[in-house]
Amino acid sequence: MYKSNIHYWLALKLVPRLAIHKKLALVDSYGLAALFSSSKKSTSILTSAHNLTPKHLAAFHQPDWQMIDEIINNSMRCYSEIITFDDLVYPYLLKQIYDPPLVIFVQGNKKLLNRKQLAIVGSRSASMNGRETAYEIAQQLVKAGLVVTSGLALGIDAAAHKGALTSRAGTIAVVATGLDKVYPARHRGLAKEIIDNDGAIISEFLPGTSPKAGHFPKRNRIISGLSEGVLVVEAALQSGSLITARCALEQNRDVFSIPSGISNPQAKGCHWLIKQGAKLVEETADIIDELAFIDNSSLHLKQQQKSQLIVNKEIDEKSINNNLCVDGLLASVGFEITPVDKVVFRSKLPIAEVLTRLTMLELSGLVAAVPGGYLRLK
Amino acid sequence: MYKSNIHYWLALKLVPRLAIHKKLALVDSYGLAALFSSSKKSTSILTSAHNLTPKHLAAFHQPDWQMIDEIINNSMRCYSEIITFDDLVYPYLLKQIYDPPLVIFVQGNKKLLNRKQLAIVGSRSASMNGRETAYEIAQQLVKAGLVVTSGLALGIDAAAHKGALTSRAGTIAVVATGLDKVYPARHRGLAKEIIDNDGAIISEFLPGTSPKAGHFPKRNRIISGLSEGVLVVEAALQSGSLITARCALEQNRDVFSIPSGISNPQAKGCHWLIKQGAKLVEETADIIDELAFIDNSSLHLKQQQKSQLIVNKEIDEKSINNNLCVDGLLASVGFEITPVDKVVFRSKLPIAEVLTRLTMLELSGLVAAVPGGYLRLK
Repeated sequence: MYKSNIHYWLALKLVPRLAIHKKLALVDSYGLAALFSSSKKSTSILTSAHNLTPKHLAAFHQPDWQMIDEIINNSMRCYSEIITFDDLVYPYLLKQIYDPPLVIFVQGNKKLLNRKQLAIVGSRSASMNGRETAYEIAQQLVKAGLVVTSGLALGIDAAAHKGALTSRAGTIAVVATGLDKVYPARHRGLAKEIIDNDGAIISEFLPGTSPKAGHFPKRNRIISGLSEGVLVVEAALQSGSLITARCALEQNRDVFSIPSGISNPQAKGCHWLIKQGAKLVEETADIIDELAFIDNSSLHLKQQQKSQLIVNKEIDEKSINNNLCVDGLLASVGFEITPVDKVVFRSKLPIAEVLTRLTMLELSGLVAAVPGGYLRLK
Repeated sequence: MYKSNIHYWLALKLVPRLAIHKKLALVDSYGLAALFSSSKKSTSILTSAHNLTPKHLAAFHQPDWQMIDEIINNSMRCYSEIITFDDLVYPYLLKQIYDPPLVIFVQGNKKLLNRKQLAIVGSRSASMNGRETAYEIAQQLVKAGLVVTSGLALGIDAAAHKGALTSRAGTIAVVATGLDKVYPARHRGLAKEIIDNDGAIISEFLPGTSPKAGHFPKRNRIISGLSEGVLVVEAALQSGSLITARCALEQNRDVFSIPSGISNPQAKGCHWLIKQGAKLVEETADIIDELAFIDNSSLHLKQQQKSQLIVNKEIDEKSINNNLCVDGLLASVGFEITPVDKVVFRSKLPIAEVLTRLTMLELSGLVAAVPGGYLRLK
């Protein structure tokens, strides 16, 4: 039976417990289709040179083609296209991150994906003021020719998409579910409006995937990965928006943040980011100037900013330790790889909370997400 | 007629069109009283080596002693003391700025001047919210053992002084008028309250000096010069508070700034400062942590210098000579008995540091502690 490129990329995606960058290294070394050949020669190379386990090999030798056909059919059924990592339409900025999705499901205008984007993210329970700010800045960024990318969540995300829509300009929503399971449900209207106005909704999750706590942080790396920079408008401490900001830093993207009154709890995250070196934004020009500047300037500057942030990180380490150690979750993560279910068991906390807080610890550089679980770093 | 030290410093202050640092260099080279001798020899030295004009020389040769007596009398009449640059009470941090006032007029508790201070400044037309923030932070800083220094202006300044007063702790007001001309007039009550509560009001301007636009920026350099850092709470762009912040930066002091909503015009200056690198402050701890950090690091540095000196001593005495000669402290000790306050004056270093370093020099055998001061041996 003929297998398309899409079949193979999906098969690669479905190989369990193998990090994306390792999968990409394999494709790079042997070619995509060759990985799925079960010749003795290829098997011995994969086993010896890449430490692949028998389970990995089984996934390569016997992909579930029927399931893959089904994914392709389901994807078509919700009017989406599958863009593979080697597709020319695959967003070039996203390609550069450490763990780019091997395939993305796209509804709507896929040409938008390679346009220059700025992500706007923030609190789901934002203040009226915060939502107005997100709306206005999105409106102005779109007029300046940028695409606004966000996460289709309540609060700031929705305000940003709506602000972008006022110019009938395309906006990109990156979701953490299958494209047929738009979440929150009350945003199905907004999702339709985005598509109708030449925008796009994208996901790395298979059709049929329901919302799951662990998927949101993964989604966030795509929001920042697509974008030149991330603007955080109102965010509490320990919120998903800070995860997106952390991803942006790791991906060497700019982080922008809006200040607010010091008594506003939804500003704590933004102020924290500014203390860490995020750029304080009072008006849209602050973002546009910076992006224009980056375009013209050398990589050197970015490097400098990065080391500044690393310095800040080091200085701040003690205070972070103070803040985070006390919660006891850190103690549940070992200096050897600790599976998430073990962390849940040890900490006696609900899994959703464990996942959020692990990501916060990761954000603070205290633990690292590794294949098989988490590793305590400090 | 007998002329006191104060007479000479006031005479030096009154020499027109000669920069403060040049005046101090003259005192350093020739001694204070000698500058006012009109011997042919000193005249020719001053003219040739320092480019002094005939007008300068006239001011040195014929000081208006009557006017100076009047200044001293007026100062006493408004219950103030005159502290000269070489006085042990002269604030050691202020001594280190580029253009320290040669004399300061002080009402109230002069012991406060050498206590660790944080300046709080901001808009005269601050919002209720801004004033509350200044008040609360001042209150907490005072409880943490710091002295709050400000400018007795309406708005933020007044709120800071009042917050400091709640603990009946001393607060310092630096004014831009003569001490008998407190401005704004409606703050005379506040001024009295500051004095009554063990605080101090200080000025470099002569008694009788009325408010004048040009004096406020000059005053601002003293506010920052006295302080470890400057906190700006609400400030418009192009406001006096930003001048104080600028002075603080030039004087190598910390600048702290409170964020606010981006639609608050009184926050523009604060946000601008944060963009320039000022530390964003959400709570008092942000300031105290930073100052504590500085303390530890400078201590660490001093320790390092100290052990460095000991190592050098063991290695080679000649290199000690080289190391210590260049820092100027050794040069401040004469081959005749030199009192410590003279060493402090000559070296322009804080007394604590001078004492430490004199002991190091003594350990190295370069100076000897003798009754009445120190004696240079080599």
